[in-house]
Amino acid sequence: MRVLLTDGAARAFGPRLVADHPGIELVAMGEGGALRTTDGAAVDREAAGVEVAWATTDLYRQDRALVRPFFGLVRRSETLRWFQSAAAGYDAPIFAELITKGVLFTRSDVHSIPIAEYVLRAALDHVQQPGRWAAAQAERRWEGHEFCELWGSTWVIVGFGSIGTEIARRARAFGARVVGVRRRPSGTEEADKMVTTDELAQVLPHADVVVLCAPANPTTSHLADLAFFEVMQPSALLINIGRGSVVDEGALVAALDAGKLAAAVLDVFETEPLPADSPLWSHPKVTVTPHDSANSDRRVLRQFELFTDNLGRFRRGEPMRNVVTADDLS
Amino acid sequence: MRVLLTDGAARAFGPRLVADHPGIELVAMGEGGALRTTDGAAVDREAAGVEVAWATTDLYRQDRALVRPFFGLVRRSETLRWFQSAAAGYDAPIFAELITKGVLFTRSDVHSIPIAEYVLRAALDHVQQPGRWAAAQAERRWEGHEFCELWGSTWVIVGFGSIGTEIARRARAFGARVVGVRRRPSGTEEADKMVTTDELAQVLPHADVVVLCAPANPTTSHLADLAFFEVMQPSALLINIGRGSVVDEGALVAALDAGKLAAAVLDVFETEPLPADSPLWSHPKVTVTPHDSANSDRRVLRQFELFTDNLGRFRRGEPMRNVVTADDLS
Repeated sequence: MRVLLTDGAARAFGPRLVADHPGIELVAMGEGGALRTTDGAAVDREAAGVEVAWATTDLYRQDRALVRPFFGLVRRSETLRWFQSAAAGYDAPIFAELITKGVLFTRSDVHSIPIAEYVLRAALDHVQQPGRWAAAQAERRWEGHEFCELWGSTWVIVGFGSIGTEIARRARAFGARVVGVRRRPSGTEEADKMVTTDELAQVLPHADVVVLCAPANPTTSHLADLAFFEVMQPSALLINIGRGSVVDEGALVAALDAGKLAAAVLDVFETEPLPADSPLWSHPKVTVTPHDSANSDRRVLRQFELFTDNLGRFRRGEPMRNVVTADDLS
Repeated sequence: MRVLLTDGAARAFGPRLVADHPGIELVAMGEGGALRTTDGAAVDREAAGVEVAWATTDLYRQDRALVRPFFGLVRRSETLRWFQSAAAGYDAPIFAELITKGVLFTRSDVHSIPIAEYVLRAALDHVQQPGRWAAAQAERRWEGHEFCELWGSTWVIVGFGSIGTEIARRARAFGARVVGVRRRPSGTEEADKMVTTDELAQVLPHADVVVLCAPANPTTSHLADLAFFEVMQPSALLINIGRGSVVDEGALVAALDAGKLAAAVLDVFETEPLPADSPLWSHPKVTVTPHDSANSDRRVLRQFELFTDNLGRFRRGEPMRNVVTADDLS
């Protein structure tokens, strides 16, 4: 069984993968899209015969030079049976294409924990304002300030997959009340209350913190628009760690200027990198981070753990983790 | 039954207290230590006849003008049966004096939740370094950085009363392993492991985060000394939200300079306010906050809830919350 992966992933995890799964053959893509087996033999791209493709986050780093050859091979392959994605979202057209043509598609949930930690950190920084303490310290001033607690706050989490779940778990440990918003609530979510997307406008007015972790699709495009901000509390915080397309950035700036909500912490944007002339960069109520909320030092190891677990399940014919089906696309 | 309280507490909570507890009479201390009943009648300080004294945090604010007359009356009173403190610690000599002479003494645990939120915020800021994102934003630079997670970290919490418990609960929700340190572990603590103070040196080398929330007493004085820092990990974070006397500040500066630990977040100090010439103010590895970690907007309401609950128990002869006995002083 031939497994396609990046040269970086092969160097980091190849020996462990082969040891864990006797009989697999790794086909690593390096500079310029050239393929080689573990023993260094060149492999023809048109006859690679890969059954499994493992996309890792290094594909999306820096120059993205491997993105085109990697996905080109994946797209053209007639032998591919399973694609393990590096991403949590599955809104890229190539993913829909693979799923539609019957390739087993699994997304990644290795981002959930660091993103949840980022979100809690952002909310705590918002209510505690440690910058005020830092400013006092810089001037050797013994000057405190009263802060707010997360205890007793209400969180509305829009999108309640693995990321929303990890956020909810932590927010509830702080004594927050969590309202989850999802297309089709399952009833087993770790939330105090679940509502459907249609009921969003009824729960938003009660939120102290609104977290957007919905996938990008036609339904969620500009979900956070003027009407959305209009019903928020003036003291509320918006955090977007999902997809940039979910927020109408023009409406957000207008709503912040009008005091419809207190502040926004944004890790994702309609256009990335955020253009230099975006008003978000310098808005006093906006915190910008560069699509970085999942960028923890444990992410690389976790994606290996997910893949090696899923590869074992795939070979044994067992149910796999994080499968996305054609139903999920609609 | 006469209840002594501050004029501020009487104005904020007097009507609710009297409604909750028919038959009590409030004696409020105002400017210059003058006493008045709710209907405005002056009360002689030497014949106030109070059975209950409720100390609230406003005593310790700003000019502290009421501290001396309030505690003077409490100390001299021959009718006082119960003293509800505003503080979590009971190391002040006056408290030992009251307990020793048989006054029922209850401390306050209303600080636990905001302090726990402060501690988690401080730890998350340490591992995520949001200041780097803020610096990039100020220059419109799309520049991320890899951060560490709390997930999988080990926390050593020194002192495991109500504050340590609230910290542990939140840290564990993040997937941290919590080792509690206490003079006499009860076995029911919300920790992955409990050890006694004598075993501290065995657990410190495993800590990523060390939180000090031990009371001030001869045993804990300079507990965090050169030998303590010597066995910490060079990557570890120290957070002190307990008592300033627990840390040998000279040893801490030396240990930070020698790379024995990575950073310290200090909310309490050997001398408060922290003297202007303290090297802690400008040390690049030290965060100073002005004994402010409990300063949340919910603290005032929570101390009322504790007092009215305890007053009901006191009048009905039921076990009270947060009793400190002579045994606890030793």
